[in-house]
Amino acid sequence: MSRKLHARRIEGIDKNIWVEFSQLAADYKAVNLGQGFPDFSPPHFIQEAFCKALNGGFSKHQYTRAFGHPNLVKILAKFFSRIVGREIDPMEDILVSVGAYQALFCTFQALIDEGDEVIIVEPFFDCYQPMVMMAGGTAIYVPLKPREGCGPVLSSADWVLSPEELASKFSPRTKAIVINTPNNPLGKVYQQEELHMIADLCIKHDVICISDEVYEWLTYDGTKHVKIASLPGMWERTVTIGSAGKTFSATGWKVGWAMGPGHILKHLKTVHQNSVYHCATAAQEAVAVGFQREYDVFGTEGSYFQQLPKHLHEKRLRLADCLKSVGLKPVLPQGGYFMIADISNLNVDLADPTKHVKYIRFCFVKVFLTQEQYYVEHKFKHFKN
Amino acid sequence: MSRKLHARRIEGIDKNIWVEFSQLAADYKAVNLGQGFPDFSPPHFIQEAFCKALNGGFSKHQYTRAFGHPNLVKILAKFFSRIVGREIDPMEDILVSVGAYQALFCTFQALIDEGDEVIIVEPFFDCYQPMVMMAGGTAIYVPLKPREGCGPVLSSADWVLSPEELASKFSPRTKAIVINTPNNPLGKVYQQEELHMIADLCIKHDVICISDEVYEWLTYDGTKHVKIASLPGMWERTVTIGSAGKTFSATGWKVGWAMGPGHILKHLKTVHQNSVYHCATAAQEAVAVGFQREYDVFGTEGSYFQQLPKHLHEKRLRLADCLKSVGLKPVLPQGGYFMIADISNLNVDLADPTKHVKYIRFCFVKVFLTQEQYYVEHKFKHFKN
Repeated sequence: MSRKLHARRIEGIDKNIWVEFSQLAADYKAVNLGQGFPDFSPPHFIQEAFCKALNGGFSKHQYTRAFGHPNLVKILAKFFSRIVGREIDPMEDILVSVGAYQALFCTFQALIDEGDEVIIVEPFFDCYQPMVMMAGGTAIYVPLKPREGCGPVLSSADWVLSPEELASKFSPRTKAIVINTPNNPLGKVYQQEELHMIADLCIKHDVICISDEVYEWLTYDGTKHVKIASLPGMWERTVTIGSAGKTFSATGWKVGWAMGPGHILKHLKTVHQNSVYHCATAAQEAVAVGFQREYDVFGTEGSYFQQLPKHLHEKRLRLADCLKSVGLKPVLPQGGYFMIADISNLNVDLADPTKHVKYIRFCFVKVFLTQEQYYVEHKFKHFKN
Repeated sequence: MSRKLHARRIEGIDKNIWVEFSQLAADYKAVNLGQGFPDFSPPHFIQEAFCKALNGGFSKHQYTRAFGHPNLVKILAKFFSRIVGREIDPMEDILVSVGAYQALFCTFQALIDEGDEVIIVEPFFDCYQPMVMMAGGTAIYVPLKPREGCGPVLSSADWVLSPEELASKFSPRTKAIVINTPNNPLGKVYQQEELHMIADLCIKHDVICISDEVYEWLTYDGTKHVKIASLPGMWERTVTIGSAGKTFSATGWKVGWAMGPGHILKHLKTVHQNSVYHCATAAQEAVAVGFQREYDVFGTEGSYFQQLPKHLHEKRLRLADCLKSVGLKPVLPQGGYFMIADISNLNVDLADPTKHVKYIRFCFVKVFLTQEQYYVEHKFKHFKN
């Protein structure tokens, strides 16, 4: 073809680190530590609900409502109304999506125009940047940094935003800010006062907050996850992103959602209806059953939302010990699937990537609470030798 | 918010006829005849494969390869290599998508830029138009028309393109043409010579062909479906869209694909990895099992690709009789889920939509081979009275 084949919107966003990792893992028959997913199954009650939906007549095999299976949006609204402290409308305020990933895509495509700026807090889940670019926006970065003068960094809580630096990033072109709590990859869980600081800036500058909260139920050591949408004046300007995959350890089901005020959600729905239209019916039915069950046992020991973090908490401690045993300094995450580690002890010259490509990669690779640590340990020992 | 909330790309594409129909059906507890899906389940062998995948360990509950579950792309490549008559590369030439719908979206987003023209054959599946608009392109329409001077229109084969009219629509700005065979809603199955005529124009004007073939296995009365990608010089410039939902009567599973040369598909993959990333794993595994089974029994009476059209063929005749019995003139479809009918006998003044909104609606509503005709009959009698 003589003319340019592809559209301009996809220029510069064709590379993807997880595509590369998955391919390498497949090529070399290696354990894939490139992506955050559990090496265990979802809880029995939700697996059962999925099979029951598949065996329950034709309707669960066919299309359901475009913006979310009625049973699912109803229980999501009921469940999160209690969390957010306001009445959430199942039909207006929720869009069920193909994983949180597609909810993020719908949000950026619906709200970001050519020339808009989007503030992204570093380090960040890698898709925010290409999604902003694809929508024609410009990403403006602001870093979380280790707190100064408090000794060694032992916890993700030691990573903080500078209020002055964050304030300096807002401009008349700022359309939105993306936060991620618990943060991938740090594990940082934003505290109430940090969220208030961000909320005040959003309100002052009339900016939308995109709050990626896919790890909301995975917090450790009693750390409390707070939804920025529940702060005064924030529901009206916040899109909260959630994930059944992360909530129920079923990343391959690809059920997620966006939640927020109807006047914003309606634009996400427009993108959804012109890109995917429906999400898989039986998986949505199963997730609905799961949330109904969690609604009924909420706050008790029987709740999966208590059981899962307890399970990963133990793995977290084992993994930290493992990292320490090979001379690294783990940063204990307050939440999420991942742990990062200070690798300065390795004394590697990171300035020359051709010589130390393995180490460079490692700088960016998180380690996983969700996978058996044997592999990680093995990998680390390999690096160490 | 003081500024415009939504992005320009979604202006004018917020309305969707099926969203409206589904809502009306839900509000009035009516049978939803607004969307094309079967009122029966997928075949047993594929339902079983789905449950088996769900019960087969953790990996089918977690992410799989972004561009298609390996088992699925391998069997799709093997299966369609035989149909297209060339070696299809499972990793390069196929993208598994969230239904054919998302494959179409990826195609338009990847290939259509601001100012590009896309030729769409009327009547068409409704999403082509807003998807072209969202990509910044301009839709240029060319109609299928009843063949002149051949008496009453009895079959969808009587609807044809004028080669001269089609040729006149190509311009230096034409980037692609969208064809749909079997066509939704007409049921027209393009014949070899019609496809050659379209192919010649595509080659002459260096234009991409987007061929939506989701109903490829649903043809009646011995009508043969031909893939335009199999014609000389067309593989290199054709994106063929397929659907497991339509192939296996499982529209709610949301598994589809785009197939074509790697140099085009790589751009679709860029859109996919920045919008959805993964498709549901277990459903893909089940569809892979289904295609392997069909590969093994291809061309025999045991093949679902023979059984399904046989089943719908009978419904088609019943439905045509039903339409005739209320004074309408059905156009027998050569393929697909739908049937249209000539309503001129009703003697309704269609110029005044306020008075005859029910009839106007009916003009646009197709009738369904996939649903029990009782409802349709009832509906028609209601209109007649």
